[in-house]
Amino acid sequence: MRFFSDNAAPAHPKVLEAIAAANRLDTAYDGDEWSERLDGAFSDLFGTPVRAFWVTTGTAANCLALAALCPPYRAILCHRDAHIEVDEAGAPGFFTGGAKLVLLDGAGAKVTPESVDAACDLIRDDVHQVQPATLSITNATEYGLTYRAAEVQALGEVAKRRGLMFHMDGARLANAVASTGEPLAELTWRAGVDTLSFGFVKNGGLNAECLILFRTELADEIAVRRKRAGHLLSKGRYLAAQLLAMLEEHLWLDNARAANAAAQRVAEAAPRRLIYPVEANEIFLKVSGEEADKLRVAGFDFYDWGPGQIRLVTSWDQQGEALERLASAIAAL
Amino acid sequence: MRFFSDNAAPAHPKVLEAIAAANRLDTAYDGDEWSERLDGAFSDLFGTPVRAFWVTTGTAANCLALAALCPPYRAILCHRDAHIEVDEAGAPGFFTGGAKLVLLDGAGAKVTPESVDAACDLIRDDVHQVQPATLSITNATEYGLTYRAAEVQALGEVAKRRGLMFHMDGARLANAVASTGEPLAELTWRAGVDTLSFGFVKNGGLNAECLILFRTELADEIAVRRKRAGHLLSKGRYLAAQLLAMLEEHLWLDNARAANAAAQRVAEAAPRRLIYPVEANEIFLKVSGEEADKLRVAGFDFYDWGPGQIRLVTSWDQQGEALERLASAIAAL
Amino acid sequence: MRFFSDNAAPAHPKVLEAIAAANRLDTAYDGDEWSERLDGAFSDLFGTPVRAFWVTTGTAANCLALAALCPPYRAILCHRDAHIEVDEAGAPGFFTGGAKLVLLDGAGAKVTPESVDAACDLIRDDVHQVQPATLSITNATEYGLTYRAAEVQALGEVAKRRGLMFHMDGARLANAVASTGEPLAELTWRAGVDTLSFGFVKNGGLNAECLILFRTELADEIAVRRKRAGHLLSKGRYLAAQLLAMLEEHLWLDNARAANAAAQRVAEAAPRRLIYPVEANEIFLKVSGEEADKLRVAGFDFYDWGPGQIRLVTSWDQQGEALERLASAIAAL
Amino acid sequence: MRFFSDNAAPAHPKVLEAIAAANRLDTAYDGDEWSERLDGAFSDLFGTPVRAFWVTTGTAANCLALAALCPPYRAILCHRDAHIEVDEAGAPGFFTGGAKLVLLDGAGAKVTPESVDAACDLIRDDVHQVQPATLSITNATEYGLTYRAAEVQALGEVAKRRGLMFHMDGARLANAVASTGEPLAELTWRAGVDTLSFGFVKNGGLNAECLILFRTELADEIAVRRKRAGHLLSKGRYLAAQLLAMLEEHLWLDNARAANAAAQRVAEAAPRRLIYPVEANEIFLKVSGEEADKLRVAGFDFYDWGPGQIRLVTSWDQQGEALERLASAIAAL
Repeated sequence: MRFFSDNAAPAHPKVLEAIAAANRLDTAYDGDEWSERLDGAFSDLFGTPVRAFWVTTGTAANCLALAALCPPYRAILCHRDAHIEVDEAGAPGFFTGGAKLVLLDGAGAKVTPESVDAACDLIRDDVHQVQPATLSITNATEYGLTYRAAEVQALGEVAKRRGLMFHMDGARLANAVASTGEPLAELTWRAGVDTLSFGFVKNGGLNAECLILFRTELADEIAVRRKRAGHLLSKGRYLAAQLLAMLEEHLWLDNARAANAAAQRVAEAAPRRLIYPVEANEIFLKVSGEEADKLRVAGFDFYDWGPGQIRLVTSWDQQGEALERLASAIAAL
Repeated sequence: MRFFSDNAAPAHPKVLEAIAAANRLDTAYDGDEWSERLDGAFSDLFGTPVRAFWVTTGTAANCLALAALCPPYRAILCHRDAHIEVDEAGAPGFFTGGAKLVLLDGAGAKVTPESVDAACDLIRDDVHQVQPATLSITNATEYGLTYRAAEVQALGEVAKRRGLMFHMDGARLANAVASTGEPLAELTWRAGVDTLSFGFVKNGGLNAECLILFRTELADEIAVRRKRAGHLLSKGRYLAAQLLAMLEEHLWLDNARAANAAAQRVAEAAPRRLIYPVEANEIFLKVSGEEADKLRVAGFDFYDWGPGQIRLVTSWDQQGEALERLASAIAAL
Repeated sequence: MRFFSDNAAPAHPKVLEAIAAANRLDTAYDGDEWSERLDGAFSDLFGTPVRAFWVTTGTAANCLALAALCPPYRAILCHRDAHIEVDEAGAPGFFTGGAKLVLLDGAGAKVTPESVDAACDLIRDDVHQVQPATLSITNATEYGLTYRAAEVQALGEVAKRRGLMFHMDGARLANAVASTGEPLAELTWRAGVDTLSFGFVKNGGLNAECLILFRTELADEIAVRRKRAGHLLSKGRYLAAQLLAMLEEHLWLDNARAANAAAQRVAEAAPRRLIYPVEANEIFLKVSGEEADKLRVAGFDFYDWGPGQIRLVTSWDQQGEALERLASAIAAL
Repeated sequence: MRFFSDNAAPAHPKVLEAIAAANRLDTAYDGDEWSERLDGAFSDLFGTPVRAFWVTTGTAANCLALAALCPPYRAILCHRDAHIEVDEAGAPGFFTGGAKLVLLDGAGAKVTPESVDAACDLIRDDVHQVQPATLSITNATEYGLTYRAAEVQALGEVAKRRGLMFHMDGARLANAVASTGEPLAELTWRAGVDTLSFGFVKNGGLNAECLILFRTELADEIAVRRKRAGHLLSKGRYLAAQLLAMLEEHLWLDNARAANAAAQRVAEAAPRRLIYPVEANEIFLKVSGEEADKLRVAGFDFYDWGPGQIRLVTSWDQQGEALERLASAIAAL
């Protein structure tokens, strides 16, 4: 029973149906009827005109955006535990042509206006030090915490004051929406977010993520950068169809709610072991090595997250028996 | 009726079935059971140990390979009409960090040992000129011509003599195999090819291509570069399953044969209009603007390929009526 | 007797004096009194406000400018024989992050509006082909020809019409001014040139070249790029002092006149052997291998420039005996 | 009276003499007689065969070396306060094509084997995290501390054990030699250092630094990278002559001794204010804002180094009156 990653989960059946339905002759690349409906569908969802680009990974979405928001000779501010820093193999350096990541501290991988200001204040304003150009945050964070709209807005304000572009890695944004109940618009463009990596694969998609540009004037550059990075698939309709299914069938929110609920079920089983509050679909627990072994023997897979800590991630499809058995096993430790 | 590109064709039903069959919980990235079978399946196919990496585009396959074969400060020799030069938005420059493409001439986009030698001889052996490191050819070429095994071998020999690594863009390699009847091994590693972009999407795949390393010691670097370029999909099993289906069901060769046969049918309809011999699934015809209009009015889509020239591409699924109607329409011009 | 390159010539004594005069305590990098006078001195010279950056090589001047004028995913149009294409080891690819050079033809390494238009027309306006962003020309050209102001202006107009930025490699611009008698302003910013690599080292300098920005809003970016490329010397005063001496003592024009006059003296000795008209300080001659050997035995050094061709370059300090002996030796062949 | 930086000091008169003596016709680039003597002169100095490349900045020396020692997809370990991290405008990212700097802690900007091991242990050995390839240290450090030979050797051992290449930024290596009295060889190649940026400009040079390759097989790549980065000056003899003068006249060590002695003179004036022991030519003092103002009013220039801290740097030419006045002024605070 895998609680290793939401990437391990299967795709939702309706996503597969949408792929099958798109399996007919159409224009190559992104000239097909599904791809052409993306801008409209996401503009409706966000309540503002956006440009929407399918890509196949969150790394591609993040780094295409960062390359457009940060010249090679400037810096991106992000949390020390941000995915772009620790889990993308240096992709930001590759896509931007060598821009620097300046690392911020903060509990639960959350960035605060204070940490942004402190980092900026440490950078001498001269030609010898790399000047910041962009702020990137992750919602929900890598530790499963969420930003409320007011928090994003406060970060948007400091970004504006400091002359920084503002990117959001939303690999699990749906989980943050499901958790906070706050509108997508408030969590993103109304709070000053310029570009958003909107995740679907962890949330029931097969292999389509979406890069959303609230700053629509970046679209031409992103289109070229996507092609140049080998991310313009020749049969894009199979990606677009997945995204449309996720939106039209409300899967994006329903799936996130299901995953969050599963995480709550686990959290309730071991309230004293929680390292962070469980706000999305990740659970970080204090568990000794011996206890971890016991869980593994019982058939559960998960990540060791440093000494005495484990990470469990729930998925859209995890309900019922396996979940209950996990909850019981943890409660029984 | 689309004869615009083989990218416009649908995926083969068995490919879709394979995706559906892979739709269950498994390890993320490329740790799943399908991905782990790729090396073996392709080693069997080629009759030599290879490392096989799924990617989603030919551009990614080509440019990941080129980045591993050519340092940023050296050059790649390729034909002036090569896909990497004219249709990948400068991706080789991006992936390699600025390596140079040195352009060779040759009828039908074919490279010859003489053209390689001539290009190398023009480069002064000093620090001011960019020294060549790599040779890249496309089989079948961008004009639908094929290299025979002996031709590839002659190029492999000049590459070796000149100290060049040897890459093959095989977006339509299956069509070349189907056309020449020569064994895959003879067309590739036995002829000295170091890395191969093996195309499946134009040939009935959905969105999985394969980068084959005959020089298996490059595998670690390629694995990192793939991740760093955002090309390590989180649910890789859906790509691996496509490739396995293409091999195990013999689709890769059957589909190419079908597409080639369709192209022959068109070619036979207008032998005097052919600009190049039709050896794979592309047909280049001398057709006046007026005649082209007539074909379009009759419902056929294709590319204008310069004044008085059109390109038609046939696909694995084009048989029967549409094809006959096209042949008749061309014959009737 | 070296007629190999104007880089082989010594520095002018007044340049050495200026260096010695600057040899005292001052602020590091470019905060010293000499560096701070550069903008003013060059603004006076050009008759318009400019920003002037010392660098130590023409390659650095060219490629810093090109990096600011061309994003990594676009192209620079230049002549097939341009220094940036054939003699800078791929530096444009390095500085720009992989931008492409699109090569134009034209006699004597000269670019024409027609060749620019033709190159642009060949590029499909889509995401698959690299779109042009910048035009770069060299005055005097790599074959010692000069552009008149009207010619530069015509190129400036086509650049504007095509939406291209306009860079001039002026490694031997002083020779072009001396040859044509046309004002610096007419040859550069009044003709639409955005950035200029203004050469001094071939013209009697020691190791200071100057990057001139007519588009002064690029100054901040250039300052950062210069530092980031390791081209912000810690004791910049020794470079600035050289440039000021070249301007204030009128060396820049006097030296170029002397070198041009020397070239004319050689050209007159062999009018029928000239491959190109001698308009600056380079002489390309038809000379057989045997004749070339004879010149070398007589003590003259020069470049073989392909079969039956040699290149001689005269310098600011070549007058008198060596020159007369060369002229006689050539006349006597 | 400037104690701002050793970059503010003039060049040594013998360096100027050497430049003047090189001011005659010779081969361009690095084909001249001075440049050709560099390998031999530095091989003699180090007691082992080396390849020596002149460059004009420490940033160029550091980053050319790092680009040869670290592929774009791997990481360089260095101290959090290393010059390559805080004062080179992101040049390592530019030269390497996006390699990552992993930052180590340690008092006085010193790296220890423990900090290297700790940093390596934190990096998961998978494709998602950037794997380390290179260790870089600075001797003397950015805080004026020195590594003894045994310390460098211990770092060389951990580098070897971890499979890391080993680079030394020796902008003030001469000061470290003068301070420790340890042989150059013991401080560098015998301790496992692969490449060294050997600083001369801060130490009485005019604008020549030297990149030393103990791993001589890197020479061809470095030669190309130097050209490609615009760092192959066309009249290299003026750089080579400076370096030869620094070696042949023993200036490199004499000047460092003089600067170190000057620093000791200042240190003795305020032993209780020292933040770090003064081991080279930099003095970090606890000085209140008011006290700092007083020193400035008295005519002394220096850096504010955070609240309540100042940095003073002494140079090869600072003896006598100014120094005594500074010592007295500090003692009198």
